[in-house]
Amino acid sequence: MILHIDKNTDPKKLQQLADKYEAIILKNRDFDILITPSSLKKIEDSDQKYVDESFVFDTDIQLASRKYFNGKRSIKIGNKYIGGDSSNVLIAIGPCSVESEEQITQTAELLKRIGLNTLRAGSFKPRTSPYTFQGLGLEGLKLLDNIRRKYGFTIITEVRDSTHADEVIEYADIIQIGAKSMYDHGILRKCAKTLKPVLLKRGFGTTVQEFVQAAEFILSGGNPNVILCERGIRTFETKTRFTLDLCSAAYLKENTNLPVILDPSHAMGYAYGVPDLARACMAMGVEGLLIEVHPNPSVALSDASQQLNHEQFTDLFESLKIIAKAINRTII
Amino acid sequence: MILHIDKNTDPKKLQQLADKYEAIILKNRDFDILITPSSLKKIEDSDQKYVDESFVFDTDIQLASRKYFNGKRSIKIGNKYIGGDSSNVLIAIGPCSVESEEQITQTAELLKRIGLNTLRAGSFKPRTSPYTFQGLGLEGLKLLDNIRRKYGFTIITEVRDSTHADEVIEYADIIQIGAKSMYDHGILRKCAKTLKPVLLKRGFGTTVQEFVQAAEFILSGGNPNVILCERGIRTFETKTRFTLDLCSAAYLKENTNLPVILDPSHAMGYAYGVPDLARACMAMGVEGLLIEVHPNPSVALSDASQQLNHEQFTDLFESLKIIAKAINRTII
Amino acid sequence: MILHIDKNTDPKKLQQLADKYEAIILKNRDFDILITPSSLKKIEDSDQKYVDESFVFDTDIQLASRKYFNGKRSIKIGNKYIGGDSSNVLIAIGPCSVESEEQITQTAELLKRIGLNTLRAGSFKPRTSPYTFQGLGLEGLKLLDNIRRKYGFTIITEVRDSTHADEVIEYADIIQIGAKSMYDHGILRKCAKTLKPVLLKRGFGTTVQEFVQAAEFILSGGNPNVILCERGIRTFETKTRFTLDLCSAAYLKENTNLPVILDPSHAMGYAYGVPDLARACMAMGVEGLLIEVHPNPSVALSDASQQLNHEQFTDLFESLKIIAKAINRTII
Amino acid sequence: MILHIDKNTDPKKLQQLADKYEAIILKNRDFDILITPSSLKKIEDSDQKYVDESFVFDTDIQLASRKYFNGKRSIKIGNKYIGGDSSNVLIAIGPCSVESEEQITQTAELLKRIGLNTLRAGSFKPRTSPYTFQGLGLEGLKLLDNIRRKYGFTIITEVRDSTHADEVIEYADIIQIGAKSMYDHGILRKCAKTLKPVLLKRGFGTTVQEFVQAAEFILSGGNPNVILCERGIRTFETKTRFTLDLCSAAYLKENTNLPVILDPSHAMGYAYGVPDLARACMAMGVEGLLIEVHPNPSVALSDASQQLNHEQFTDLFESLKIIAKAINRTII
Repeated sequence: MILHIDKNTDPKKLQQLADKYEAIILKNRDFDILITPSSLKKIEDSDQKYVDESFVFDTDIQLASRKYFNGKRSIKIGNKYIGGDSSNVLIAIGPCSVESEEQITQTAELLKRIGLNTLRAGSFKPRTSPYTFQGLGLEGLKLLDNIRRKYGFTIITEVRDSTHADEVIEYADIIQIGAKSMYDHGILRKCAKTLKPVLLKRGFGTTVQEFVQAAEFILSGGNPNVILCERGIRTFETKTRFTLDLCSAAYLKENTNLPVILDPSHAMGYAYGVPDLARACMAMGVEGLLIEVHPNPSVALSDASQQLNHEQFTDLFESLKIIAKAINRTII
Repeated sequence: MILHIDKNTDPKKLQQLADKYEAIILKNRDFDILITPSSLKKIEDSDQKYVDESFVFDTDIQLASRKYFNGKRSIKIGNKYIGGDSSNVLIAIGPCSVESEEQITQTAELLKRIGLNTLRAGSFKPRTSPYTFQGLGLEGLKLLDNIRRKYGFTIITEVRDSTHADEVIEYADIIQIGAKSMYDHGILRKCAKTLKPVLLKRGFGTTVQEFVQAAEFILSGGNPNVILCERGIRTFETKTRFTLDLCSAAYLKENTNLPVILDPSHAMGYAYGVPDLARACMAMGVEGLLIEVHPNPSVALSDASQQLNHEQFTDLFESLKIIAKAINRTII
Repeated sequence: MILHIDKNTDPKKLQQLADKYEAIILKNRDFDILITPSSLKKIEDSDQKYVDESFVFDTDIQLASRKYFNGKRSIKIGNKYIGGDSSNVLIAIGPCSVESEEQITQTAELLKRIGLNTLRAGSFKPRTSPYTFQGLGLEGLKLLDNIRRKYGFTIITEVRDSTHADEVIEYADIIQIGAKSMYDHGILRKCAKTLKPVLLKRGFGTTVQEFVQAAEFILSGGNPNVILCERGIRTFETKTRFTLDLCSAAYLKENTNLPVILDPSHAMGYAYGVPDLARACMAMGVEGLLIEVHPNPSVALSDASQQLNHEQFTDLFESLKIIAKAINRTII
Repeated sequence: MILHIDKNTDPKKLQQLADKYEAIILKNRDFDILITPSSLKKIEDSDQKYVDESFVFDTDIQLASRKYFNGKRSIKIGNKYIGGDSSNVLIAIGPCSVESEEQITQTAELLKRIGLNTLRAGSFKPRTSPYTFQGLGLEGLKLLDNIRRKYGFTIITEVRDSTHADEVIEYADIIQIGAKSMYDHGILRKCAKTLKPVLLKRGFGTTVQEFVQAAEFILSGGNPNVILCERGIRTFETKTRFTLDLCSAAYLKENTNLPVILDPSHAMGYAYGVPDLARACMAMGVEGLLIEVHPNPSVALSDASQQLNHEQFTDLFESLKIIAKAINRTII
């Protein structure tokens, strides 16, 4: 249950109620919020007087549920918004990994040329082998910081594990939690303590139920700015790297109040399929797309096969603008 | 290997070559075709003189491969075409099952009103339980036949197993092989003996490799008119009925010469998600969509939850036209 | 619901009840059985007088459910039994495909030497490519028939599709329905009309719910002798051919009254892992094992990598006897 | 490649070689080890003089590969060993979570009574919802420490994320890395800096390739004592919690030099199936089993449905002893 508690309630009483109902306390401007396990369907009559409004749920998807807030949260990206009443669609592009100043500057110039403002690139890479490129780490964050200062872009970059979460939270404008880190309580709890937007990627073996519950860790910890990102799940099919799960995206759109962003690049794993999938994603009417773009994919230090080169992306971008216009969305 | 054999070759020699290389013989107008297992990469030098052209493959996807014919097969639907140089997109709609004359007539009237010409409905239903509605069988085929005569529509209907394959092949304009029947050699071989288009649905546990190999049974048996239909695969996610695999659709578009049709209704399993998915499918640039539409889904005898009602479909159809126009496709 | 109808009930009334409750009629020695959709939980009071006993179910697993018969069905294999009160474990071995008289005779001699009596081999092979060995068909059935006459073995062989189901039902002692044919109504309904045991393999993309419902087609059609066979499901893991699902086997043991047989060979796909898995299967306490054995796997025309040679099987068999003894089971 | 470098090589040269071949340096008693990406198949001729022995690999499974060490690593558990030449099978039991001193003492008494020495229990629980019991944290580690002092047991407990990894490494005898944390570089790198055995659980969406590569992070960082634990993967089947993947266990046994432990409790998710699966696991011939046991599962704060009570486990233990004896293994 979510209980909105009258602001005039004695703090001791608030704590008492939280203890009694095993609830998390979430401070809000106009009222305090208690969030109990969803198994609770009713509080005692004698406690009703402290409660302004209450909400009952079938599962532990509570703050993110349309049953709690039947709209789409509005989240500020740079000086614009996605979600809410906006028709904006964020297109964030960039290489899998920051590799060098030259590479990331080339990317920045591409964004500038075509009029995009959000650059994504990883610096702490969650590689599955210890024997491959692990990312530039803090040095990469600093390269991204320089790009931000020079171009004014919004920077999305990924936190891999709790040991460097503080640095990523400091340097990123939007903190990406990757598919392999999605269950990491250390990261989730740290991201709950900032107000920066968090781009939470679905684990490739994760149900949407678990996925949104991971968002609840951040939301219930105090950060309302969570964006969900579907990036492909692992299935029996091996001709493509993962399987982009647009059915689940439709579920998330219908049932949660969180903006949804789609990542066709990681799902497909091969550049040839990315444009078709990106157009499909755009036509679904989501809040954004992540697309991997690299100045020269053939020499990329990670995910070489799936990154578009600048020409390929420029072509794709033209067709995305046409579809966006047809469905009355504005690319930002 | 595919070997194009000179038309003047002695039939005995042709058979001799087929035996020697364990090949299937496929008669063609201008030449005969031998199709060997793909493990064969080279024939004997002394046999080269019978061969006009030869093609080598990595896998048993041969006739359907872009390495054999680097284009999209053109297939006649009614008096129009999909594939080939056409920009046509087929939208085929109708109820999961033919239930009554009244129901199927209402559907036909919807098609007529909005200007579509292809009606799909099942009569031999591959239900997973013996205790539910099994379809009207031959009686349903006759109802569909009446609709065809009255409205001039193209009829797509499904063959469930070999015992009634002949009837379905006789009554249907396009023969649908359902997901659960996709491996059925009896059906595949019978469909190879007609020239009517075959809409082959991917099994929900089937890799694209196996899927296209099933098409090879039909193609190598003499029917060149195969359309592939992706309709969702089975994954760990249970909030939706299946997972529509658009990554595989992108693979099929890139690597095969067969038209591709998408079925968002079965994939999603819930009407609320079908419009968003249908728009995504349209934007991908495939040759067609199957969408389940029922005059009154709440009383449908099968797949009640996923069928759109006529008003919902009419709304969806308007948005599909807008996207089709934006990407220069023509709905038929 | 399952309703046991008093034997003295007027046949017209029986039919009337069946129509009213959309039930299948199953004739039995002592009473007639009506099987309605499981959504029916209660019949009208006025009809209670025809009913001796009634059973309510959550799902369409009804005749196979422990809630209907809380034991294990006893099924005659040759002159012995599995299931019921027996502690017998059937070990059925043989090559993937009958390839020649010599090959199948060598297999028969192996069985004779080690004291087994059940030979399995396929003759109509459900291959996924048209360009590979498709089995010997009817000729193979005749070779198996000769083996039966000469050695007195019980023969298990597979029906691939409805077009040759009658022949397989005639020649086999135990009719195997393969994983790819599991949904084939044509086969299921034909197998319901014999009393020969049916070994129903689980589709690799099939839930246990659907799997047991396929058995219900046979059971409700009149053949009570169904054996379930788990043979591996398709998952994201590709180092092995399939994933043997012993958790589901545990579910089937607990919740159904049908004997369960396990097939580690198809699940693993590689001979090296079959002995360990076979020992695991034996220790689970199921009614049988299928193991692929070939005189010379390296030249096998199908499934070469997963078949044990005779020496490997002989070694494995010794260890299976030890485990069987430890858990008080008797190998037949 | 793995390169054994002559101990007399100049440290500068060693570093130079590491830089040149992008290798990790692993210090050993008798020689130094360089581990390069597996894509390297050959070093320059002029560098051969520094190399005593070299090993080439198909994939980044290198230190864990049977191609490097063709045996099973021996790992000390308490004062005994698993792996190596030993026939020992470790049975580690305990509740999902430490809940109280009373609960964990009851568990300890059970171990003592039946003669087991390894207790497993979690204190930092990787729950998927923020609104359920999250474990006792450090307090739970201290309760486990008390049990160790009092009973002399070996304690297995889980690290959830990097923020508390140091505490768990300090308190645990065997550090468990859970399925959801398996990709966590922070944890993997910290576990590489201790010599305590690490029980690495396979992620439920993780291929065996990735799983063993996660072990390579620990091995290449300096800790040779890694035990692999298969605990069920996520598949389309929902009647059981996960699908225990014994095919992959057979792969790991054949292809890696790391001991393998199986966890039937998490895979099944329901107590009724655990005994059958545990017997199957024992018969496979692995190095150990984890089984969840709780004094009173019905009131457990996590995983209530899958834990055996003490009586159920005691019965199971008797049958495990019989199977272990039959296959010449010794339970520790």
